[in-house]
Amino acid sequence: MENINLSLAQVHDLAVRVLTTNGMDADHAAAIARVITAGQRDECHSHGIYRLIVCVKSLREGKLNGHARPVTQDVSAAVVRVNADFGYSQLAFEMGLPLLVEKARQIGIAALAINDCFHFSALWPEVEAIASTGLAALAMTPSHSWVAPAGGTKPVFGTNPIAFAWPREGLEPFVFDFATSAIARGDIELHRRTDQAIPLGWAVDNFGRPTTDPVAALQGAMLTFGGHKGSALAAMVELIAGPLIGDLTSLESQKFDAGVGATPCHGELILAFNPAILGGARASTGAKHAESMFDAIVGQGARLPSQRRFDARVRSATRGVEVPAQLYNDIMALVKD
Amino acid sequence: MENINLSLAQVHDLAVRVLTTNGMDADHAAAIARVITAGQRDECHSHGIYRLIVCVKSLREGKLNGHARPVTQDVSAAVVRVNADFGYSQLAFEMGLPLLVEKARQIGIAALAINDCFHFSALWPEVEAIASTGLAALAMTPSHSWVAPAGGTKPVFGTNPIAFAWPREGLEPFVFDFATSAIARGDIELHRRTDQAIPLGWAVDNFGRPTTDPVAALQGAMLTFGGHKGSALAAMVELIAGPLIGDLTSLESQKFDAGVGATPCHGELILAFNPAILGGARASTGAKHAESMFDAIVGQGARLPSQRRFDARVRSATRGVEVPAQLYNDIMALVKD
Repeated sequence: MENINLSLAQVHDLAVRVLTTNGMDADHAAAIARVITAGQRDECHSHGIYRLIVCVKSLREGKLNGHARPVTQDVSAAVVRVNADFGYSQLAFEMGLPLLVEKARQIGIAALAINDCFHFSALWPEVEAIASTGLAALAMTPSHSWVAPAGGTKPVFGTNPIAFAWPREGLEPFVFDFATSAIARGDIELHRRTDQAIPLGWAVDNFGRPTTDPVAALQGAMLTFGGHKGSALAAMVELIAGPLIGDLTSLESQKFDAGVGATPCHGELILAFNPAILGGARASTGAKHAESMFDAIVGQGARLPSQRRFDARVRSATRGVEVPAQLYNDIMALVKD
Repeated sequence: MENINLSLAQVHDLAVRVLTTNGMDADHAAAIARVITAGQRDECHSHGIYRLIVCVKSLREGKLNGHARPVTQDVSAAVVRVNADFGYSQLAFEMGLPLLVEKARQIGIAALAINDCFHFSALWPEVEAIASTGLAALAMTPSHSWVAPAGGTKPVFGTNPIAFAWPREGLEPFVFDFATSAIARGDIELHRRTDQAIPLGWAVDNFGRPTTDPVAALQGAMLTFGGHKGSALAAMVELIAGPLIGDLTSLESQKFDAGVGATPCHGELILAFNPAILGGARASTGAKHAESMFDAIVGQGARLPSQRRFDARVRSATRGVEVPAQLYNDIMALVKD
C-alpha cells in the first residue's frame, strides 16, 4: 500500500483540524493533537492519527463532551485533583501537571488524580512529561472489564496499563508502559480482521476454555500477563486508579458505557517522585547507581524498554512520518467544512 | 518427620530468646520476633522460625549490627526517612510507621524510605500493618543481583518483591506480595538440596543457556516472571527502592556483600495512600466499587491473592503451629546460655 509522508507539524495540524471541525474546543483538540503527534512520531501506530477515527466517532455519538471544562482542585500539600468533566484526559493532565510537579519538588512525592475522564491514549507521554522535569513518575488507569483474574474465566479487569519513567541527565528517560493483560485488545481485533488464529495464553472463550479463535476470545475473556502475579497487579491498578481516587473500576466503567462501545470513562492516578528530596544527601550517588544498572543491561546486549520508540523519534524528527494513503484519506474525510 | 506443636506466644518467645542470647538488643529482637511469628502463623514456612538460622549466622559473622540504633528523620510533609544503621529493617519500619500513617492521613499520600537496612523478611507484614490503619500501601525492595533482564543472560536485578494492601471494612485486607523473579531463589536452592530438576523458564546457566539444573541456575542467572514486562517492573523496583531514596541497587548491594553471602543490605520504599483524601467526597462509593470487584473475582471461583495465608492464620490462632522437630532442635541449639 502507498504511503504519504507528513511532517510532525502536518500531523499536529491534521489532528487539530479533524477534531475542531467535529465540534471539539480548541484547547482539547490541541492537547490531543500533541499526544497523537507523539504516538505517530514514535511509530506507535495504534496511538497515532489512527486514533482520530475513534475520537470523531465518540464525539459524533455524543458520549464525549467536546466542550468539557476540567476543574483543578488543590486538595492538599501532596494531592492535585482534576475533574475532566467527561472530556478526554489530555487537557486535564496538562492542567494538573504544573501543580503536581510543584508539589513533588517541594515535598518529595505527590499525586495527580484525574476523575471522570475518557481515556484512549498511551501513558508514556504523561510519565515522560514528568521525567522531563527531573522527577520520576508512575501512572495507571483501568479500562473496560475484558480480562479474567487468574484462576477465573469471566472478565473483571481492564487491560490496566502501568507506566513508569526515570529521569536521566542529558539522556532520554528510562520508560516503560505496558498493559497488565497478556496482549493489547487491539491485537486480538487485528487477528479477527485478518482472520488469523491467536496464540494460546491470550484469552479464553465464553465457556472458559483456552482459545485460538479471535472471535471467541473477544466474546470470552482476555488473560493477564504473568499468571497470578500479573493478575494481582491488574487488581492493584483497578484499586488505586479507581476506588482509591473515588472513581470507577473497569466493571463499573463497562456498565457506564451501556453497550455503546465508546472510549472507557473512569479515572487515572499519576504519582511524581523527587529524587532530590527522597534521596537527600545521597541523591547524586543514587543517580550514578541507576546509570550503572542501565550500563549492566545495555552492556550485555539487552534493550531498555522504550529504545525502539526513541530510535523512531530520532528518525521522525528529520524525515517526518509515513502514513498509509488509505488511512490518510479516511481521516481527511472526517474533516468537516 | 515428627512435628512439634507451638503456640504463637511460644514461637515469639523462642525467637526473642534465640536473638537476644546471640547479642541482639531487645527492641530489635522483639520486632523481628513479631514478623517471624506472623510468618509461621500464616504458614509461610520460609519466613517463619527457619529464618532465625540466617539471623544468627549474620549476627555471629559480624556483618549485621545487633545494637543498631535506627534514626528517624521527618524529611517533609510527605516523607519520613529511617536510617536503619545497618541493622535489620523491622525495627526501622516500626519506628517510621506512626509518622508515615500520620502524614498520609493528613495529606493523602506519604512515603517511608528506609536506608542502610538488612532485609530478610516478606513485605506483607508491613503493608498489612498499614492497611490495618485504613490506608492502602505499596512496598518494594531490591536484593542481590541474581536475575537477568529480558533479552540478557547476566544477573542485574534482585528478586525485587512488590507488595500491596487495600483495606477492607471488617475484613482482612486485599494483599499480595510477590517476587518479580520467575521464582523465589529459595525454591531453586530447595531443588538443589533435593537434587531435583527445575522447570525451564526459571533460569539460565553461566553461558546464558536455558537450564533445568539447579546448580547451573544458581551459578548463572534467574529470569524475571512475565518476560519483558516483569523485567521492566524489576527495573522499576531497583530504581524507586534504590537510587530514588539514595540507596543501593541489587548490583551495588551484591558488591557491598563482598562474597560473604549475608542478608542483602540496601533500602526499602513504602508508600501509604489515604482513600478518604484521594477519594474525597466519593471515597465511600469507591470502597463499594472495590468490594464489587472482589465479589466478581471470588464469585466466579477465583481466589484473592492471600487467601491461603488468611486461612492458615485462622487455624493457627486456635491450634498453634506445627514445626518439624528437627528444625525446632536446630533452633534451640542456637540459644546461648
